[in-house]
Amino acid sequence: MGFEWRDACAEWVRGLGVSEIRKALTAAADPGLLSFAGGIPAPELFPAEEFRAALDRAIRDEPENFLQYGPTDGHPALREYVADKLRWCGMRCTAGQVVIVNGSQQGLDLIGRLMLDPGDHVLVEDPSYVGAIDAFRQYQAEFTVVPTDAEGIRVDAVAECLQRDRGPGGPRRIRLLYTMPNYANPSGLTMSLKRRKELMELSHRFGLPMVEDDAYGELRFDGPRLPSLSSLDCQGTVIYLGSLSKVLAPGLRIGWVVAHPDVVKPLLHLKERADLHSATGSQIAAVNVLSNGFHEPHVERLVHAYRQRRDAMVAAVAEHFPAGTQWQRPSGGFFLWCTLPAGIDSGVLLHEAMTRAKVAFVPGRDFHAGDARPDTIRLNYSGVTPAAIHDGIERLGALLHETGFERSPKDSRELKDGHQLKDGHELVR
Amino acid sequence: MGFEWRDACAEWVRGLGVSEIRKALTAAADPGLLSFAGGIPAPELFPAEEFRAALDRAIRDEPENFLQYGPTDGHPALREYVADKLRWCGMRCTAGQVVIVNGSQQGLDLIGRLMLDPGDHVLVEDPSYVGAIDAFRQYQAEFTVVPTDAEGIRVDAVAECLQRDRGPGGPRRIRLLYTMPNYANPSGLTMSLKRRKELMELSHRFGLPMVEDDAYGELRFDGPRLPSLSSLDCQGTVIYLGSLSKVLAPGLRIGWVVAHPDVVKPLLHLKERADLHSATGSQIAAVNVLSNGFHEPHVERLVHAYRQRRDAMVAAVAEHFPAGTQWQRPSGGFFLWCTLPAGIDSGVLLHEAMTRAKVAFVPGRDFHAGDARPDTIRLNYSGVTPAAIHDGIERLGALLHETGFERSPKDSRELKDGHQLKDGHELVR
Repeated sequence: MGFEWRDACAEWVRGLGVSEIRKALTAAADPGLLSFAGGIPAPELFPAEEFRAALDRAIRDEPENFLQYGPTDGHPALREYVADKLRWCGMRCTAGQVVIVNGSQQGLDLIGRLMLDPGDHVLVEDPSYVGAIDAFRQYQAEFTVVPTDAEGIRVDAVAECLQRDRGPGGPRRIRLLYTMPNYANPSGLTMSLKRRKELMELSHRFGLPMVEDDAYGELRFDGPRLPSLSSLDCQGTVIYLGSLSKVLAPGLRIGWVVAHPDVVKPLLHLKERADLHSATGSQIAAVNVLSNGFHEPHVERLVHAYRQRRDAMVAAVAEHFPAGTQWQRPSGGFFLWCTLPAGIDSGVLLHEAMTRAKVAFVPGRDFHAGDARPDTIRLNYSGVTPAAIHDGIERLGALLHETGFERSPKDSRELKDGHQLKDGHELVR
Repeated sequence: MGFEWRDACAEWVRGLGVSEIRKALTAAADPGLLSFAGGIPAPELFPAEEFRAALDRAIRDEPENFLQYGPTDGHPALREYVADKLRWCGMRCTAGQVVIVNGSQQGLDLIGRLMLDPGDHVLVEDPSYVGAIDAFRQYQAEFTVVPTDAEGIRVDAVAECLQRDRGPGGPRRIRLLYTMPNYANPSGLTMSLKRRKELMELSHRFGLPMVEDDAYGELRFDGPRLPSLSSLDCQGTVIYLGSLSKVLAPGLRIGWVVAHPDVVKPLLHLKERADLHSATGSQIAAVNVLSNGFHEPHVERLVHAYRQRRDAMVAAVAEHFPAGTQWQRPSGGFFLWCTLPAGIDSGVLLHEAMTRAKVAFVPGRDFHAGDARPDTIRLNYSGVTPAAIHDGIERLGALLHETGFERSPKDSRELKDGHQLKDGHELVR
């Protein structure tokens, strides 16, 4: 009869491919590979026994809450817990402004659905999180890309874009700004306090909604604790995204959206259409685990371990990668972002690395919402032990040298805050 | 600055309201109400202790699978289990064709996103499931509505629609048919075997993809076990949806989509953008509970209890509702669907019922994808004990009589298969 499912799909779906992140997770699952590809927490640091006990308590104490249909906005105790914690960090919010979602990825998807008409533009930094880019693309959004430097997103460039867009005769297509102010995935960058304040001022001046994705905010290794954009926001233009994936366990799929009540209401309509509500049992168990003084010491343990891994990764890259490699030491989070010496294609490198060095990483291509750059890579250190980091980076470095680059660690450049390279390249721009 | 979130939302979102289902669940949460509004399983039948033990085993045996990022398509053991069970029921499918989703609601959302461009038409029966209607509407779909009778969807009407749509000069806008062949929500109807075969034939002849939503299929009280559309489908045009919400526990949010590999692939791309994957722990625990011979006896217990409740509901409605009320005894599932005597507005009735009789139900309005009818209601019996059913229906009946209808149980009509009412009304049309 000639029926083809491909022809039965929506038009935009037909060109859809597998994301780099998914390829990376698939690659990471090969036990023969040493993988810097995932964005995964260290499994040996999961509080499995605490979570087991909390689950047991949850289903004994609240079997019906655990098993029956639950509220679309999430379990009340978890919403209270999240609101308390955010207030402690300076946000003015109530539990009623918290919507529990299936990991912050669902938050991104629902926000895209909520806000984006086809052809709308999202302002993103370069590089930006591929999961957000992919989520927004589903709604036929386009991207206005602004560069980053050591202080994070270049707010002067944001201002220029907004002036062009909103000024006389401007297209008025920019509907949203998406940013990760803390230890961004993939760049590892932290937005400076000055930039945060400037960005909030722009958001208010232009009436520009912003999505603040703070998946990594608690994993601060060094540097000051900076206020979230949301806590600087007196007008409610920021939608805040948080997650338990990095500090408790990603398998639970628990994240949250915190926003103005005018956002919460339609967001719940969409969440209801998406899956009615998130699984309740793991929400109850999660709040059981986290309360009673477990949360902060656990984060301290994670920070201690991940800081060591960050240090190991930075040291290994400095030692083994060829001259001309650029990176910035991240002050928190999961990733080191490197710009390779000119002429190296990260896709070709990945193929060689996986087949010959048995090492995986994520090529940077898909993190660039604008022009794809072939010379960037994302290295994950959180899921790999320091010894394995040294070993894997040495293997990757040897491969990079084989392709003709002179081994010269002292020429590799670790950028200092605000430092510009001589060749005019801004870091991870 | 005049910033309004309402203006910042996508155009289609601005008119979005709370669904009847959500209102119903909210109403059901008021402990002072006797609620026939929910679509909820009986909480006293949850296998809480078995689930507790299974969770405990799952996190002890597979802490990393439980807590770490997991596969987008679902936990392999659950996918195998689902495929085995469906093969046993006559479907030709492999575990590779099974995608685990957050309840079948997520399946509906992802299928809508996968297949529907704005303006596409979905063929639905009248009444149809409001969760599906709402999910598809998000993608700016429209509906072609066909009537039902005692044998389920009127396949002759489907054929007419398709001939008009696909014939010479036809608009070719019908992209999908959505149906619940077993104990449909809300109508309670079962599609006859003859209709199933005719519908499959149409699907193949016209190359029309169909979504078969089988959320209630296991809860068969009487009548023969009929083959699913999928098991009659030799060409892969059917997407099958199943769920653990009715037979195990809805709070887990576990459902599945089973489809041709050409559907599975893009569906996974969308699932990844929606939430990366569904929570793994409850999947492991669910397969732990269900295997080892627990599943079938548990379903038998549910069927036994729900059959009694169905009987109680039908008897109570026959006794207490006014003449002219129409319904058909469902052979399975959760709901009795009633058409009230002409002149009664179910929305007005609900208000009176909640304030004066302290009884809740769902007005049928939102289940009609075409012209809204004011005279239909959905009554849930699965979540209410037989004694409470008698009590609540008596209170609702008294209210209906107050509004001027003579109490005359023998004039109420229970339709037999294929029977037409004298006034020309087909049941739940």
